[in-house]
Parts: sequence; C-alpha cells; structure tokens
Amino acid sequence: MTKGKLLYEGKAKKIFETDNPEVLLVSYKDDATAFNGVKKGTIEGKGLINNKVSNYMMRLLEKSQVPTHYIEEISDRETLVKKVSIIPLEVIIRNVSAGSFAKNYGVEEGIVFDKPTIEFSYKNDKLGDPLINSYHAIALKLATKEEIETIKKYAFKINEEMKKFFISINVKLIDFKLEFGKLKDGKVVLADEISPDTCRFWDATTNEKLDKDRFRRDLGNVEGAYKEMMKRIIG
Amino acid sequence: MTKGKLLYEGKAKKIFETDNPEVLLVSYKDDATAFNGVKKGTIEGKGLINNKVSNYMMRLLEKSQVPTHYIEEISDRETLVKKVSIIPLEVIIRNVSAGSFAKNYGVEEGIVFDKPTIEFSYKNDKLGDPLINSYHAIALKLATKEEIETIKKYAFKINEEMKKFFISINVKLIDFKLEFGKLKDGKVVLADEISPDTCRFWDATTNEKLDKDRFRRDLGNVEGAYKEMMKRIIG
Ligand SMILES: Nc1ncnc2c1ncn2[C@@H]1O[C@H](COP(=O)(O)OP(=O)(O)OP(=O)(O)O)[C@@H](O)[C@H]1O
Ligand SMILES: Nc1ncnc2c1ncn2[C@@H]1O[C@H](COP(=O)(O)OP(=O)(O)OP(=O)(O)O)[C@@H](O)[C@H]1O
Ligand SMILES: [Mg+2]
Ligand SMILES: [Mg+2]
Repeated sequence: MTKGKLLYEGKAKKIFETDNPEVLLVSYKDDATAFNGVKKGTIEGKGLINNKVSNYMMRLLEKSQVPTHYIEEISDRETLVKKVSIIPLEVIIRNVSAGSFAKNYGVEEGIVFDKPTIEFSYKNDKLGDPLINSYHAIALKLATKEEIETIKKYAFKINEEMKKFFISINVKLIDFKLEFGKLKDGKVVLADEISPDTCRFWDATTNEKLDKDRFRRDLGNVEGAYKEMMKRIIG
Repeated sequence: MTKGKLLYEGKAKKIFETDNPEVLLVSYKDDATAFNGVKKGTIEGKGLINNKVSNYMMRLLEKSQVPTHYIEEISDRETLVKKVSIIPLEVIIRNVSAGSFAKNYGVEEGIVFDKPTIEFSYKNDKLGDPLINSYHAIALKLATKEEIETIKKYAFKINEEMKKFFISINVKLIDFKLEFGKLKDGKVVLADEISPDTCRFWDATTNEKLDKDRFRRDLGNVEGAYKEMMKRIIG
C-alpha cells in the first residue's frame, strides 16, 4: 500500500489516498482544537494515542457485529480505512449530562439519565454544526429514514459495548460523538475515530476527567490524561 | 362564570381565574412581540381576531377527534378554557422551509418538504427556548415517552386537518407552533392558541405573507393581513 496524495487536512487528522481507490490512509496529528477551532494547541503524543485507542475500539466493535471503516494499523500514527462518503451528521450519545447539553438546558453536569439519549448535529462548519433532529435531517436529504434508523441502532449498540468495556477499566462513559459513512454499495459503517478527543471519560472512582475537557477547560495534565486512558485501554 | 384574579399576563394574552377551579378565562391583547420579546408593538384588532380565529380552529379540531382546552367564547376577546398544566415544549410542525429553520440550516424559504417535520423547543425564556429532541425532553423529565407519542400523533393530525381547511380558503399552511397541556386526570389536550401569531400563512396564489412575519420583518399592512385571514376563515 503506497501513501498517495493528501486529500484533506482536518483539525486532528490528515487523510491520504492510497493505490487502492477504496482505501484511505489516516494520519493522526498532535494538534488540538476546541470550540469550533477558536481554541488551538498541541497535545504531545495525542496522535499516537488516538490512533491506537480508536483502532482498539473499532476492532472491539467489529467483534460485536458493528461494521466499521477499520482495515489495519500500519504505524504508530497511521491506519488504513475503507473510504466512505461521510453522512453529514455528528451523532452524539449521552449517558450523563455534561458539556453543551448542561449549558444549553440549564442543568448541572453529572445527572445520570434513565436511558441514553441520541442527538444529531448537522456537520456544517459555516453554520456552526447546529443541532438537528431526524425529521429535519430527512427533509434536508442529509440522510434517508432508513439510514437514520441504521445509525440509531448502531449508535445505541456501540454505547452498550463501550459502556461495558470502559467500566471494566474503571472509567465512566459520559458521552461521545460518532460519524458514519456509506461504502460504495451504500452500506452504512462507523467511520472517523473514537478517542479521548471524541468521548467524555470520567474516572469511575474519583470522577476525574480523562479526556479533551482537560484541554477545553485548562484543567492541566492534559497529556497525562490521554496517556492514562491509553494505559488502561491497551495496557 | 365570574372573572376572578389575574393569574398570568403573557406577551399576547391575560389569563384569569374563574369561580370554577378547572376553568380559566383567556383575554387576548393587541400587543405584539417578536424575537423573544426584543421587538415590541401593537397590532390593532389582533386580540379580537386571534380569539375568534383560534376558537374557530379549536372547534374544527374537536370535530376531528383532537381534544382541546376550548370551552366557550364569551366575548370578542375572551374565551373560557379548561385549565391545564402546560407541558413545557413548543411543538412546531413545518410543511415548507421558512424562518429560523431556513436561517439555522442555511437553506432558502419555500422548500416544500416531502413530509411534514416536527420539532420541540424547551419553553424556557431564560435559556431562549432552545431546540430540544424527544430523547432530551424525556431525559430532563419535561414529558414522558407516552406523552411525547401522543403529542406527535395529535400534532400531525392537526396539520392534516389544518392543511385541508386552509387550502380551501386559498392559504398555504407553511408552519405553526402548538402547546399541549395536561388536564387534572393527566389527559393530554391541545392548549394555548392557533392564530396568525402562531402560524405562517402564505396566500396560495401570490405567496403573500398573511401572518406575524409582516410585523417581524416590517413588511407593512400588518393589520390588513390579520383582517384578511379572519375574513377568509370566518367570513
Ligand atoms: N473512512 C473515511 N472515509 C472518508 N472520510 C473520512 C473517513 N473517516 C473520517 N473521515 C473524514 O475525515 C476527516 C478527518 O479529519 P479531522 O477529524 O481532522 O476533521 P475535522 O477537523 O474534525 O473536520 P470535519 O469538520 O471535516 O470533521 C473528517 O472530515 C471526517 O469526516
Ligand atoms: N388551558 C390553559 N391552561 C393553563 N395555561 C394555559 C392554557 N392555555 C395557554 N396557557 C398558557 O398561558 C399563557 C398565555 O399567555 P401568552 O401566550 O401571552 O404567553 P407568552 O408571552 O407567549 O409566554 P409563555 O412564554 O409563557 O408562553 C402561556 O404561558 C400559555 O402556555
Ligand atoms: Mg474530526
Ligand atoms: Mg404565547
């Protein structure tokens, strides 16, 4: 597999072509951003950690019958994935109130919901990724009703598998963001990444934050939290 | 029925107690506000028109098996209604893109949806009535899953009945806002009002706006539009 031309440089990853038109190479960066790119910084070692953590999670989910874009880790920071056409919805699952949810609805962080919630935001930087519901997403033809149903089914299944896994390493899974995409044949698969950049993790004993909130809120020991998560996940 | 003490003065109506603890008297005002109270004005005759239009719609819906709070019109501006505990969700149905939908999602006004959409916003002035989905509404215990299902069922039914009625008077029903409440026994009924304040109406031939957007956007002839709608509805 040869690394081809740079297709896209995002805030956290670079995406390269390969000699197979169905395969992309993802290269994870140490760059960190928050609040839609307003806050910028570097988290040393993040690229390697997110690559390894995300791949670990993708393999775990594949074993639980969730199809993903994952093919193969080829270096500390680089992974081959199936090329998808990204469905322009950020899919957020919440088990406990935190972040924008707590702020927007005027409640404290840490409320444990009776059942997990799901929400979508429209992936559109110019519009500020606004919250959107499934009726609107369908009306705007961002996804079909069937695709939304499939996404919901996988997202809740992913949550169950991840909660089980994380509690086994003494971590509470508070909330997380997923992206899904369509393969050439239209099949919906989990894409992008699952990492401390895209999840909220709280230590199950102390409630210490072990995720990107340490960077967003200047809580200090950002690198330490990422390393601790990798250690607990991968050993 | 005697008019008792003023319970609540809102932006568009005053609510009075009556000698029956289950019955309220609603008195419609000419005051108009927009953008969460930032824009203020008066629309002469609006109170009378909204009272009569809303009561006409409530009677029409009752005939179509939608339960409402409506009891009896007692004067040009006053109506007796069943007292409910308002479910703190604004329920919006859209047939065509317009207003905040068009702005938030970066599309033009006037796109006809394949199917109507429904959305909720959390009735909370301090938070700015934010958009909320049904998972979140349930997680925050604003309504139960069953109440949400009932509200959705009634809201889509109301849309079908209203579309049919309005097209018969050469008006396109673009979108509208509903409020639901619970009677003492927990039964969910349609409450509040249905009027040019709470609906977008476009003339079916010319697309001329016949609703509160004339006030919001300073389009002129605000009183004329309200009068025209009353004339077409009530004769
Ligand atoms: N399997 C895949 N095939 C195609 N694109 C993918 C795949 N997995 C992830 N992507 C996309 O690649 C990009 C990854 O880069 P990064 O996460 O750095 O982007 P970003 O800065 O978050 O920007 P964006 O707003 O585009 O998500 C994202 O746009 C993501 O949607
Ligand atoms: N049947 C009913 N029983 C009790 N309250 C009702 C009933 N119907 C409507 N209401 C409430 O009465 C008030 C009507 O006043 P108005 O429409 O002027 O309020 P508003 O300024 O829009 O403010 P709000 O933010 O409270 O809706 C609203 O709060 C509405 O929810
Ligand atoms: Mg990203
Ligand atoms: Mg009102």
